[in-house]
Amino acid sequence: MGQQPITFLRQVVALCMFPELMDSPSFPEDAKWRAQRILRGCGGQSIGSYSSSEGVQCIREDIAAYIEHRDHGVPANWDNIFLTTGASDGIMNILKLLVSGEGHNRTGVMIPIPQYPLYSAAITELGAVQINYYLDEDNCWALDVNELHRAYHAAKQHCQPRILCIINPGNPTGQVQSKKCIEDVLHFAYEENLFVMADEVYQDNVYAPDCQFHSFKKVLYEMGPEYFNSVELASFHSTSKGYTGECGFRGGFMEILNLDPEVKAQLVKLVSVRLCPPVAGQAAMDVIVNPPQPDEPSFTQFHKEKAAVLGALADKAKLTEQILNAVPGIKCNPVQGAMYAFPQIFIPPKAVEEAKALGMEPDMLYCLRLLEETGICVVPGSGFGQREGTYHFRMTILPSHEKLKVLLEKVRDFHIRFLKEYSDLQDPQCSVAA
Amino acid sequence: MGQQPITFLRQVVALCMFPELMDSPSFPEDAKWRAQRILRGCGGQSIGSYSSSEGVQCIREDIAAYIEHRDHGVPANWDNIFLTTGASDGIMNILKLLVSGEGHNRTGVMIPIPQYPLYSAAITELGAVQINYYLDEDNCWALDVNELHRAYHAAKQHCQPRILCIINPGNPTGQVQSKKCIEDVLHFAYEENLFVMADEVYQDNVYAPDCQFHSFKKVLYEMGPEYFNSVELASFHSTSKGYTGECGFRGGFMEILNLDPEVKAQLVKLVSVRLCPPVAGQAAMDVIVNPPQPDEPSFTQFHKEKAAVLGALADKAKLTEQILNAVPGIKCNPVQGAMYAFPQIFIPPKAVEEAKALGMEPDMLYCLRLLEETGICVVPGSGFGQREGTYHFRMTILPSHEKLKVLLEKVRDFHIRFLKEYSDLQDPQCSVAA
Repeated sequence: MGQQPITFLRQVVALCMFPELMDSPSFPEDAKWRAQRILRGCGGQSIGSYSSSEGVQCIREDIAAYIEHRDHGVPANWDNIFLTTGASDGIMNILKLLVSGEGHNRTGVMIPIPQYPLYSAAITELGAVQINYYLDEDNCWALDVNELHRAYHAAKQHCQPRILCIINPGNPTGQVQSKKCIEDVLHFAYEENLFVMADEVYQDNVYAPDCQFHSFKKVLYEMGPEYFNSVELASFHSTSKGYTGECGFRGGFMEILNLDPEVKAQLVKLVSVRLCPPVAGQAAMDVIVNPPQPDEPSFTQFHKEKAAVLGALADKAKLTEQILNAVPGIKCNPVQGAMYAFPQIFIPPKAVEEAKALGMEPDMLYCLRLLEETGICVVPGSGFGQREGTYHFRMTILPSHEKLKVLLEKVRDFHIRFLKEYSDLQDPQCSVAA
Repeated sequence: MGQQPITFLRQVVALCMFPELMDSPSFPEDAKWRAQRILRGCGGQSIGSYSSSEGVQCIREDIAAYIEHRDHGVPANWDNIFLTTGASDGIMNILKLLVSGEGHNRTGVMIPIPQYPLYSAAITELGAVQINYYLDEDNCWALDVNELHRAYHAAKQHCQPRILCIINPGNPTGQVQSKKCIEDVLHFAYEENLFVMADEVYQDNVYAPDCQFHSFKKVLYEMGPEYFNSVELASFHSTSKGYTGECGFRGGFMEILNLDPEVKAQLVKLVSVRLCPPVAGQAAMDVIVNPPQPDEPSFTQFHKEKAAVLGALADKAKLTEQILNAVPGIKCNPVQGAMYAFPQIFIPPKAVEEAKALGMEPDMLYCLRLLEETGICVVPGSGFGQREGTYHFRMTILPSHEKLKVLLEKVRDFHIRFLKEYSDLQDPQCSVAA
């Protein structure tokens, strides 16, 4: 999508990869120090060695320090940090660890709708029960704790709800949860003894000026020791998002809280079957949690590059919302964070009928038509889940400003043509059915 | 263990990581060409992008070309190649794909004993049935097809044997299978309609002058189209072994043969949940399958380094066998390939009794004592499986020649002390009970 890698991150990993570069004057000293420190933590001082299954110890320590800083002093213990092969790997392993039972005793996993499909796929793969709770589209995709209660009690009839998954900032919905909302969720988890999986991979992607990222852990801490010492929590982060976008590294980490020591031992056993996460991905994660400091030579460039990426994303979040909301029959919540817009689209009844006749979801028909007519590929809302009778698509805000503007204008023109084509001429309904 | 990385591999990956190095005169042109080619195959020409879930296409093509060359012209189709996160990931995914059923219908997985514990762990995790077939220690750990028949028919009483796992060259046993033996195994798989999983990660690690690596695929091809077009086969390779030893990259690939197209589509779906294997590991794999050619600038150094690693391993394989076999009460098969010796050790009945009183396997007692008294860490045979009443340990041959010699002498001295301590003075039995 044209987003450039952060120079410092690539320098550190290249130095780890080929330590002969330590002698090169074209690499800054702070990158060399980082790389030397990481390599000292590696077996035989080589990025090619297996690390311990939980990850390189000094990187786990750096992550713990990062979390303490992020959360304004809430203590973090490196022994609770596990490096992962991207966040997906951590999420999958925690689900594997917790899912059990048969019939009415099967583990129920509460997930938001719309959701990132990793969750539904993992739940299916592990034979757990998917429990949907719906985000409130009319309220900027907020999480309403009453909806959690509803979903929980309905599911209790046929399974054992045990895990509550949250994605904050949201994917595909782009909302940023308020502190109050997180408190409510954690209170609910505490009351119902649920394990909270907080997918916080977009923690650096917050654009709306009135929004702020609050980690589940920090909010839990502020609720007092009764909560902080009892609610089981796993939080996930990744090199693939934020301002780095280094997906191919498959880097990430999870922090676990309040796991029973015997369960934690099983987790260590489980991750050790796969030996270790890729060490280059671990090194990339280290750069993210331990970036150049003001007195270091790479500070200025690093922060310029970081600010450029995040500034452009914030611009594009706004642009996307503005252009889409000006289209009749499209309604788009503010893209407060993450990297996606998830607009609701009005699909005329005739198009819905046509799709059904084709054995296809109506938003799939819409997205296929969009692809065919414009070359633009977006993902139908039905892939993420949505309230019955509503239709959406997910698009990223990652293309460059210029491309994104052209893209959005093409979507607009397509949508208007689509409405026209399928609307009854006697009743040109163009507003979102909401 | 002191083994140095192959310079060319690290150069190519460092160039992919930090393409500004393309301008550096200290990197050879052939490394630059490789890196440019790999990057052209990556989204946005960046190693930080997700690749397709099966891997970067040009790397899959290079792997197919490598296999054709390795197998003297047996055709390989890049569409049957999947890059993996180390070989473990591929093995796990194939098992996931194939394991099903409950009770008597549970999938049975035939594994060698001794085995690499990934297999038993994966079988437990997936709820499959482990079917042990014993390698013939008296015959250099050869695989006897009669033993396969025995194990298969015994297991048929209580499960559905469906998968046959082979490790060749062997881990932990270090044997290299003969072509005749592989033919017998494939004939058996054909007769019983078994899916063959050929763990061939040590294909470059063959030391005994009278041994040669034969891929299961090539042997199958030579058995004729009736076999080649019907036996389902998956073969696994890795960046972690061979002469590269780049474990931390988590690189590897699998080649699948004769998978039903619908099953293959499910495999693609399964691997896509984890997005993609680490791209740096894919790049490392590319170097292994596409090394410098005679007319390229890095050829000489590459082959010098490769020959040095493999030559040293061959020396150490011999040294290990020789020193161990000179110890009374230790019997070690030739280390024909891979990276391990798996000697049988005589443990006196008094030590066996003491271990049992401690609730411990006798070889675990032995290995703990060895660790405590010498600082040498080897793995008890009971972790890999062994015939009832026999005891072994696994050790790698990876330390430098000098260190390995000292280590082996310490093992010898320890063993003699251990025998003395536990032997009945009236009956100083020092020969292996076999």
